[in-house]
Amino acid sequence: MGAGNPEHITVQAVNALNRASVFFVPSKGAEKSDLAALRRRIIERFVEGTDYRVVGFDNPVRDSSNESYRSGVADWHDAVEGVYEQLIVGELGEEECGAFLAWGDPSLYDSILRILEKIRCKGRLDLDYEVVPGISSVQALAAAHKIPLNRIGESIMLTTGRKLAEGFPDNADSVVVMLDGQMAFKTVDEDVEIYWGAYVGTEDEILVSGRLGDVLEEIERVRQEARARKGWIMDTYLLQKPERR
Amino acid sequence: MGAGNPEHITVQAVNALNRASVFFVPSKGAEKSDLAALRRRIIERFVEGTDYRVVGFDNPVRDSSNESYRSGVADWHDAVEGVYEQLIVGELGEEECGAFLAWGDPSLYDSILRILEKIRCKGRLDLDYEVVPGISSVQALAAAHKIPLNRIGESIMLTTGRKLAEGFPDNADSVVVMLDGQMAFKTVDEDVEIYWGAYVGTEDEILVSGRLGDVLEEIERVRQEARARKGWIMDTYLLQKPERR
Ligand SMILES: C[S@@+](CC[C@H](N)C(=O)[O-])C[C@H]1O[C@@H](n2cnc3c(N)ncnc32)[C@H](O)[C@@H]1O
Ligand SMILES: C[S@@+](CC[C@H](N)C(=O)[O-])C[C@H]1O[C@@H](n2cnc3c(N)ncnc32)[C@H](O)[C@@H]1O
Repeated sequence: MGAGNPEHITVQAVNALNRASVFFVPSKGAEKSDLAALRRRIIERFVEGTDYRVVGFDNPVRDSSNESYRSGVADWHDAVEGVYEQLIVGELGEEECGAFLAWGDPSLYDSILRILEKIRCKGRLDLDYEVVPGISSVQALAAAHKIPLNRIGESIMLTTGRKLAEGFPDNADSVVVMLDGQMAFKTVDEDVEIYWGAYVGTEDEILVSGRLGDVLEEIERVRQEARARKGWIMDTYLLQKPERR
Repeated sequence: MGAGNPEHITVQAVNALNRASVFFVPSKGAEKSDLAALRRRIIERFVEGTDYRVVGFDNPVRDSSNESYRSGVADWHDAVEGVYEQLIVGELGEEECGAFLAWGDPSLYDSILRILEKIRCKGRLDLDYEVVPGISSVQALAAAHKIPLNRIGESIMLTTGRKLAEGFPDNADSVVVMLDGQMAFKTVDEDVEIYWGAYVGTEDEILVSGRLGDVLEEIERVRQEARARKGWIMDTYLLQKPERR
């Protein structure tokens, strides 16, 4: 579904939406309600006719008290899997087609493909599914800043705030950071360039870029204000080592 | 413009195409002619009316005899820059809008954004441009294989065949390789999983996946056959370390 701009939707996705008769839309929390609104807008704008149903559901909440990050996520996936299986069984008739609208691109830090594959493998339902690529927040960020992600011939690392806090990779000039609630960029060498964006592609889009040491405080301030105002924030950034000469 | 499937185009891109009166389309070589044909198909299908021109141009060829990879690329960019500047000056009137259709997503291993920014900075023309994100071959590959790119909570490295040949990164479970003319995957531990795709998104799409040791020869064979048949190949692959348990 793209990462916030309804016009990120592809022609392939519009056609896929029009094959679905049921849309499954998560519906909880402040963040979720803004995101659910965008999903509904996309459905209303791009699905022809009104011969479809929108089914809201509550995503189970991850138990952050679980000490191991990976096993916490695994338990959570089991719970989510149960919810999704129920939705499919309960809402879709034989030969009927339903749709989950994945945020950005479904292959990037999203569990939907793992969940569907697990449900399919269990074999309790005869489930078949297609995956439609979408514009990820990473690409939306690069386009908004009008920059290439890579240095010429160099690698790009996509990672999380959690991983960045362990250290800047020594084998990539460009590092894209997602899922960073802790502002891990504060741990990084001040001479790197940062291209930061929040709510990229939406009307609330905020962009800041420059030498990290020069813009760090601005990003921190802007980020806190925005989060307080909207109740949630989604931000991503690219860090690039200073160009070698 | 997406990475081969015309339906990868986004609504945002369709709208942008319809603001352009001139399309600049590279037009040389066997590969180029197939790619130019796809560009023309996209323009014919998505641009309303016929009030536009398609201007073909020849991209300068990179001097691969230059020993330093980076400086070879830099010389080549200077030449490309001259060609693009000429195109803009010669073909676009004041206030007129032209379009370059970048393959996949413009931020990934494509020089168009660097070139336009250099031309703008020189200040000889009053150039303004917008960047529209697109579906990259990386996302098309993941969608075709119906897989997430990342392991849960882990990093993803995007890199080139040249870099992979120097060694498998020790800080990413998932490595996506582009621009690999030398089949650098042959240098990698046979126990990794490979998700390989050529001409992804097109009618010629070929997908192979499995344990690298098991499918390496098949990929090599299929790749050579396809390249001989079509005269060019574009392939990308994801390598994933065996799942830790
Ligand atoms: C669970 S991940 C999902 C990513 C998504 N699949 C994609 O392709 O963008 C959520 C993270 O994506 C990033 N993100 C998603 N949408 C964003 C947006 N519109 N602006 C900035 N960051 C965004 C943030 O880093 C957020 O923490
Ligand atoms: C110069 S890079 C441009 C990448 C492009 N900007 C993108 O987003 O996909 C060209 C490389 O992209 C990959 N590629 C592009 N299109 C592809 C396709 N349809 N199938 C497989 N690989 C593709 C190949 O690795 C190729 O060597």
